Amino acid sequence: MINSVCRTTDSEYQMVKVAIAGATGYTGAELVKLITGHPRAELVAVTSRSYGGEALENIFPAMRSIVNIRCEEMEPKSLSGRVDCIFLALPHKVSMQYAPVFLENNIKVVDLSADFRFKTLSAYEETYQKHSAPELLERSVYGLSELYEDKIREADLIGNPGCYPTSFLLPILPLIREGAIRKDGIISDSKSGVSGAGRSLSLTSHFCEVTESFKPYKVGAHRHVPEMEEILSEHAREKINITFVPHLLPMSRGMLTTIYAELSEKTTYEAILKIFMNYYESRHFVRILPKGKFPDTAHVRGTNFCDIGFWVDDKSRRIIIVSAIDNILKGAAGQAVQNMNLMFGMDEKSGLELIPGAI
Amino acid sequence: MINSVCRTTDSEYQMVKVAIAGATGYTGAELVKLITGHPRAELVAVTSRSYGGEALENIFPAMRSIVNIRCEEMEPKSLSGRVDCIFLALPHKVSMQYAPVFLENNIKVVDLSADFRFKTLSAYEETYQKHSAPELLERSVYGLSELYEDKIREADLIGNPGCYPTSFLLPILPLIREGAIRKDGIISDSKSGVSGAGRSLSLTSHFCEVTESFKPYKVGAHRHVPEMEEILSEHAREKINITFVPHLLPMSRGMLTTIYAELSEKTTYEAILKIFMNYYESRHFVRILPKGKFPDTAHVRGTNFCDIGFWVDDKSRRIIIVSAIDNILKGAAGQAVQNMNLMFGMDEKSGLELIPGAI
Amino acid sequence: MINSVCRTTDSEYQMVKVAIAGATGYTGAELVKLITGHPRAELVAVTSRSYGGEALENIFPAMRSIVNIRCEEMEPKSLSGRVDCIFLALPHKVSMQYAPVFLENNIKVVDLSADFRFKTLSAYEETYQKHSAPELLERSVYGLSELYEDKIREADLIGNPGCYPTSFLLPILPLIREGAIRKDGIISDSKSGVSGAGRSLSLTSHFCEVTESFKPYKVGAHRHVPEMEEILSEHAREKINITFVPHLLPMSRGMLTTIYAELSEKTTYEAILKIFMNYYESRHFVRILPKGKFPDTAHVRGTNFCDIGFWVDDKSRRIIIVSAIDNILKGAAGQAVQNMNLMFGMDEKSGLELIPGAI
Amino acid sequence: MINSVCRTTDSEYQMVKVAIAGATGYTGAELVKLITGHPRAELVAVTSRSYGGEALENIFPAMRSIVNIRCEEMEPKSLSGRVDCIFLALPHKVSMQYAPVFLENNIKVVDLSADFRFKTLSAYEETYQKHSAPELLERSVYGLSELYEDKIREADLIGNPGCYPTSFLLPILPLIREGAIRKDGIISDSKSGVSGAGRSLSLTSHFCEVTESFKPYKVGAHRHVPEMEEILSEHAREKINITFVPHLLPMSRGMLTTIYAELSEKTTYEAILKIFMNYYESRHFVRILPKGKFPDTAHVRGTNFCDIGFWVDDKSRRIIIVSAIDNILKGAAGQAVQNMNLMFGMDEKSGLELIPGAI
Repeated sequence: MINSVCRTTDSEYQMVKVAIAGATGYTGAELVKLITGHPRAELVAVTSRSYGGEALENIFPAMRSIVNIRCEEMEPKSLSGRVDCIFLALPHKVSMQYAPVFLENNIKVVDLSADFRFKTLSAYEETYQKHSAPELLERSVYGLSELYEDKIREADLIGNPGCYPTSFLLPILPLIREGAIRKDGIISDSKSGVSGAGRSLSLTSHFCEVTESFKPYKVGAHRHVPEMEEILSEHAREKINITFVPHLLPMSRGMLTTIYAELSEKTTYEAILKIFMNYYESRHFVRILPKGKFPDTAHVRGTNFCDIGFWVDDKSRRIIIVSAIDNILKGAAGQAVQNMNLMFGMDEKSGLELIPGAI
Repeated sequence: MINSVCRTTDSEYQMVKVAIAGATGYTGAELVKLITGHPRAELVAVTSRSYGGEALENIFPAMRSIVNIRCEEMEPKSLSGRVDCIFLALPHKVSMQYAPVFLENNIKVVDLSADFRFKTLSAYEETYQKHSAPELLERSVYGLSELYEDKIREADLIGNPGCYPTSFLLPILPLIREGAIRKDGIISDSKSGVSGAGRSLSLTSHFCEVTESFKPYKVGAHRHVPEMEEILSEHAREKINITFVPHLLPMSRGMLTTIYAELSEKTTYEAILKIFMNYYESRHFVRILPKGKFPDTAHVRGTNFCDIGFWVDDKSRRIIIVSAIDNILKGAAGQAVQNMNLMFGMDEKSGLELIPGAI
Repeated sequence: MINSVCRTTDSEYQMVKVAIAGATGYTGAELVKLITGHPRAELVAVTSRSYGGEALENIFPAMRSIVNIRCEEMEPKSLSGRVDCIFLALPHKVSMQYAPVFLENNIKVVDLSADFRFKTLSAYEETYQKHSAPELLERSVYGLSELYEDKIREADLIGNPGCYPTSFLLPILPLIREGAIRKDGIISDSKSGVSGAGRSLSLTSHFCEVTESFKPYKVGAHRHVPEMEEILSEHAREKINITFVPHLLPMSRGMLTTIYAELSEKTTYEAILKIFMNYYESRHFVRILPKGKFPDTAHVRGTNFCDIGFWVDDKSRRIIIVSAIDNILKGAAGQAVQNMNLMFGMDEKSGLELIPGAI
Repeated sequence: MINSVCRTTDSEYQMVKVAIAGATGYTGAELVKLITGHPRAELVAVTSRSYGGEALENIFPAMRSIVNIRCEEMEPKSLSGRVDCIFLALPHKVSMQYAPVFLENNIKVVDLSADFRFKTLSAYEETYQKHSAPELLERSVYGLSELYEDKIREADLIGNPGCYPTSFLLPILPLIREGAIRKDGIISDSKSGVSGAGRSLSLTSHFCEVTESFKPYKVGAHRHVPEMEEILSEHAREKINITFVPHLLPMSRGMLTTIYAELSEKTTYEAILKIFMNYYESRHFVRILPKGKFPDTAHVRGTNFCDIGFWVDDKSRRIIIVSAIDNILKGAAGQAVQNMNLMFGMDEKSGLELIPGAI
């Protein structure tokens, strides 16, 4: 056994009552899975635009006899009093319409769209569209759990990070903050499994087009770039531009990011290691790999871990950092639950101790 | 949350101390995963012939920071007093050498090889090799959890079923016992993921030979046939021969078996459904699907479920039954833990409430 | 080199002018590929409902610099005089509207839909819909190349067989015709790659739903059953019913069918082998495998072969036959070209000598 | 038809007699396939250390009835007089033992190992091992077909490039030669299908370890780096160091390389395009994609193409170039045949007009 699964044997704690909006997408379904297995949270409502009235097990037969809940149409006010926390696994633009209503009704919100990730309204609006609740941008907290923990604990509105930003920022932010690398010339070569594109039909996710195929997409134009640059710039205290190329992997879940950066003068392997240890040694979900070891998406599959390995090339004075996450977990639903845990004063690992096997 | 995860909040229960022999194969690793997450079992030793002395997380980096244990060389006597139960995830012939020693030392044994699946010595020896502990065949219990539950509760030696037999016997045994189908002419067309072939290297499991390939193997000669026929004949009270063709699927885990049998006179869809409900309605791990629905390996992946769907063709008086399991779980490690649970008087679901998501 | 590639060095032969309707689906694209590489055919037109006016290389970038042709809207009369032969890779119901016009304009038609596969109008209409050109059913020839060769040579309208029927009928028809097996109780357990479902979007072909998944579908209700039964009954000279279960494989292309049948009295392995040799020894595209060898979809991938292996179980008096084809080639586009070759008096191998490698 | 398949109708040309050493690996088998389909080459011998005496179709059943040849033990002198050209698909170190013997016997050699890729003995010996035929390094020609064509035409010994170097050098060499990019700071982030690791068994190529996995390997230490740096430096006329990270894709064949480099002052998108057009517009096997389009391994799968797309980021003054090849074809066997074609005065496309379809 792992100690923490049932570590809370006292019965006085409160169960967090949870709703999931958009439960019939891949991220939503993963949230259903996590909350169902969460020792201190209870799933009380799921909403779906497409499947209102339908039992969830009819949409996801895997859940038969485990998850016994029926999809509701989204009516924000009807959830008032019934739920403490709602996850919005909705498209961009839809989230910003609902979030204010939930907050007014004292429901904490973890939004998995991009609607509340930005502090700078113009950055959001240039990248996405006009924002209908700009007054909430200041109030919302960027949900990169390990690096915004203190703010998340106090928040009632979380802009849950994108998967690419999570895999990039967890390794790069400590190095930028500590001045270990140069601020220009950072390159992020990212590779994602297909589940990141969701359950909506498209030729890009059509089996015969994906299997035995590998390709970049949105070269120079991915919407996660402004998100990464805003956060990076905030910590660097100056405007940083990065080069980012996402690629599509012929597999279902997993994301690996290879980062290239130039070392600051005198930075050594040991200095980098020390920075990573300072930031992450005590953090369960970030694993810094031993020298010479690099991440494999298979090693984080089905977990909330972010694995980080790195290599310092003294000749070129460059660092290569490789990070791996499960795009649906640490890159979406897992980090969202981690944020809920922090917001409600629970152990961040609660409900997330997903034990991996060999395959 | 699901109620049962922490349902036992009383602290008086005993933790079962567990060892896993052969922990570095796929089945062994899955046992490590299950016991690590088990609320009432504790992993105290793992053995490996190839990796003695090595930390398990070096072999399976996914387990880093979760499973903190080092492989031991197998020395049966050294486990005496340290463990209550051992899982033998070892090759045929190796298990039969160790099992007697463990039993003498009051360690209950769940053997995942074929060595203790047979009651008939000759059947075993014709199929495998000479048996060195034939006196234990009578004592051992066939670990098909749902159908041998009473005996398993009393047993100290379990012959854990093969994956093909599990996927075939769970649906067919009730029908044979209740006389709903004819005893001759039963056909089992089975399809298995590659993990069934284990972690040992072979061209059959070489990526480029498996991907985009589908084929039958051991047509008319698979070693699971005598196992299935012995159990089937026991319940039919007469010798039954079956036709069995296993196939290899280009995927990692999952097994689907399509069974064709002839209906007894007057058997109807409803009669079959009633039999299945009598046997399985109260059993958590067997799910009888609604009319018109059929199993998908993806719906049982990562769980201990066996899903069963069926169709009665009145014109040909034939029944088609389809069952799906995760070959490494209900077909191996999962059922093994279910059997341990029963042997130690625990809820059979303990440590097996693996919640599936959408993907 | 293989002799036949350029075997015809005399220049007096005519090039067959070919059009392909529905060129932007997977079968259509495979026809484009085959005709482009065909030494005695020339691609003069492709039509597409969705991509009229678009260069084909924009839809299939793989073809860039190889296939230089633009999609046309379908206007049957505009092809008159320009083409000798048209392949209709169109949905059921659409083909029957166009075929009569082409025939009137002396264009030979190979139709890959079901519209001209049936002789019995009622069988077609019960399975599909009302037929608008029933007078052509008698004129059309079922395009199972090896078994209808003589008729195909004389035909101007071919109903190209479905993929499942091809994989089933090639092995079973000779045995039925020669009385080697019993006519009742034949079972076809078939497994198909996803490309059979085409390029149209559906959740069934969505990558994350297919990978690591295996399942049956349309149990007892697949539209290929009446097609198989009509042909089988014609050759058996009595009505034959079969049991057929199709399954979906997590791979792109390939089809494997496992057939179970009961042997007629005294039929032996050698007798079956002799029948197969009589039918297929001289046929390039059907390979009867040696005793103990069975097909693998990977061994026919990218070719027009049908591989057949079989096993006779004397104890149960049953035969197990396994056949494998590439569902897009021998199961669709390849056989269609083979039929064109026969209709135009060419070597049936022309343009189909696709050489497989190891992977 | 494509014009060139039978373009040579005159009968006076000579057939090139070909042997393949190491025909039972994936590259060797691909060579067998290509030579079998080659209109002006004839396969007269294949050798294998593991399968001497065995018919090739027993090792690769896909080739049954197409390739009728038996493996020989390698005896270099026995091939004298029988063959004009030999492909050595052998491990490093083995090739260098045989090559001198073949050359003495007037057999032209295309070596697919690294043994004859280097001009600098020390670079080879530091990366691999002591060279036993160093006197041949000067004589050998680096077989990057498009860029060493003139030398290849005159050569009798070709060091066929590695797959990673091919995918990197084809796009980068023209830019370096024309001074369009800076010589330092070039990064190559490469991703390869599993077939590159060959047919030898290893856990790295074990199906369950590869599927749903993506990872870097040999970070900072891959043996292709010195090969790339030697060629690059030769053309730059100064020593160039690159940063290279190879990754393993969960697919069988295909390689995609994403290159990051800094633009020289004033270099524009148009200037880069002009350079690429100058070098490759007339070269069949290099396809420069239109603006905004990027390669997909699926679009070059089964062909000898190298597809190149690029994007100029004016803000960061950086260029991103993406190239895709089939690692077994343009990255190995295909380029080897292209080199043979050049050495024997044939059209470079001969035997390589492999037509791709949609899937």
